[in-house]
Amino acid sequence: MYIVPESLARDLVSQEAATEAIETVFAAMAREEARNFPVVRETLGHADAVYGFKSGFDRAGKVLGLKSGGYWPGNADRGLTNHQSTNVLFDPDTGRPYALVGGNHLTAVRTAAASAVSIRHLARPDARVLGLIGAGHQSGFQLKAAAAQRRFEKVLCWNIDPDLLSTPAKAAEDIGLPFEAVDRDMLGAEADVILTITSCFEPLLMKHQVKPGTHIACMGTDTIGKQEVDPALVAAATVFTDEVAQATVLGECQHAFAAGLLAAEAITPLGRVITGAHPGRTDIDEITLFDGTGVGLQDLAVADVAVRLAVAQGATLTVDM
Amino acid sequence: MYIVPESLARDLVSQEAATEAIETVFAAMAREEARNFPVVRETLGHADAVYGFKSGFDRAGKVLGLKSGGYWPGNADRGLTNHQSTNVLFDPDTGRPYALVGGNHLTAVRTAAASAVSIRHLARPDARVLGLIGAGHQSGFQLKAAAAQRRFEKVLCWNIDPDLLSTPAKAAEDIGLPFEAVDRDMLGAEADVILTITSCFEPLLMKHQVKPGTHIACMGTDTIGKQEVDPALVAAATVFTDEVAQATVLGECQHAFAAGLLAAEAITPLGRVITGAHPGRTDIDEITLFDGTGVGLQDLAVADVAVRLAVAQGATLTVDM
Repeated sequence: MYIVPESLARDLVSQEAATEAIETVFAAMAREEARNFPVVRETLGHADAVYGFKSGFDRAGKVLGLKSGGYWPGNADRGLTNHQSTNVLFDPDTGRPYALVGGNHLTAVRTAAASAVSIRHLARPDARVLGLIGAGHQSGFQLKAAAAQRRFEKVLCWNIDPDLLSTPAKAAEDIGLPFEAVDRDMLGAEADVILTITSCFEPLLMKHQVKPGTHIACMGTDTIGKQEVDPALVAAATVFTDEVAQATVLGECQHAFAAGLLAAEAITPLGRVITGAHPGRTDIDEITLFDGTGVGLQDLAVADVAVRLAVAQGATLTVDM
Repeated sequence: MYIVPESLARDLVSQEAATEAIETVFAAMAREEARNFPVVRETLGHADAVYGFKSGFDRAGKVLGLKSGGYWPGNADRGLTNHQSTNVLFDPDTGRPYALVGGNHLTAVRTAAASAVSIRHLARPDARVLGLIGAGHQSGFQLKAAAAQRRFEKVLCWNIDPDLLSTPAKAAEDIGLPFEAVDRDMLGAEADVILTITSCFEPLLMKHQVKPGTHIACMGTDTIGKQEVDPALVAAATVFTDEVAQATVLGECQHAFAAGLLAAEAITPLGRVITGAHPGRTDIDEITLFDGTGVGLQDLAVADVAVRLAVAQGATLTVDM
């Protein structure tokens, strides 16, 4: 069994490699060659933690396994990451354990990869202004992955606390993009692509604030009750997601869906655009919206990349299980 | 992170230690200090395999994690065990991975432990004849674990294929108990304790074949549709289980429950007998029946024993995740 510790996974798996892996597995999902299993997500009643698993099987890539982990809010005080993730892969031919892979960095890049793939396939080719709502740890990953998809000329950012913009500002600086803190009216009026990556429970961006032709990737809503944008905006957009069943229950779509503004049949798996089964954007003024809920197959895909690179470089530990 | 490979777990965790651990965690479940999470169980559509996870959290024992694995029917031809299990434990204070533990031997002893604990608390003290229905790999574990609970004088065994009795016969020989192959009428008429451990889908033991005062542990039924005994026998018995919600859906109780012969409220968690909240057997002629469905907390409990023993003996590997 291969062991790929967190630090090695971080060194090995670039954002670019993660983005390619996510594009591939989304396509496999659309071809029904890859399938996510039911999510387990439980409040522990200990350390205020939420814990669970996302799992699945990619028959095309021969990747089987799970990401286990959760959210421990007291970790920061211990010098640890609050979100803790560990991937376990199994040999689909025998069920034998195949690899254990630290999943904190991989979770960040696979989440950023999903919005990047949505931009690749849905944003206008001439998109030049990238808007970002949110400034947490994940925002820098989202920004960098997105920036690689179009010839962006600047980043506009809004966060609920304007004093906490250093993470995305640093990310923009790293890749040489001008960064401006703006209000949401200006962000919506200027941005061609908007990423939302918050932990909010109310709409932060209204329909009237967004201009025609915008692509929006809502990446923060992964739980019943969370919300980032106006349900009327979701209803007005052409909507794509990673997994429809999850989007209507715990993704950004949940609110428009519950209000009867959006039918499940109107939501397209992004993989169908990648495979060519759906045309994606068909009009320059169309608003496209990607609801990134996060699925286990994303985790497995990047964990598999980590193992392959570690093996190729002779960098991995092996243990005999 | 501790690594306890399969061979080390096998060497370290005795049946006796497993039985103690299962008794302890059943009691924690009854006190609502330990809880199983929803089971994931999926047909892969590859290698005819069934794969999934059982998971939970024992707040009393501070054990959090999962057993991942499943059934790969082609493994035997490769010289591997068809049932493959791997336990992953996490630190409940931080969510950091704590231990990876080979789970094949542990699954066998934790399953045997459950029926042994039921015998300890429910069989008549004067039980002398142990009946066994089934002769697969697991039957030897069940027999040995059961034998330690009462002063049994012989083992009577029936299997659908009488040519395949060598596994339980060898187990009986190992512990010095006379072993007889019998028909089911004789088994039911003589046995004071009956274990069923098969993969059947029809009743193998009818109500009229069982004498008053018998304790029965049904250990084979873990899936919708499987069945080992007559629903009328279940209905006539005082019924105990590891987890009521699971028993009525996929355990031996499913058939009596579906037929309206047994209410969920009439099924008692075995842990309540262990803690003294339920008296258990109250009459010498009472038929008691334990429906062992198998829960994730059993796996976590024995995996935790393996880690503790490995650490205490300096036998474990550690990797920095």
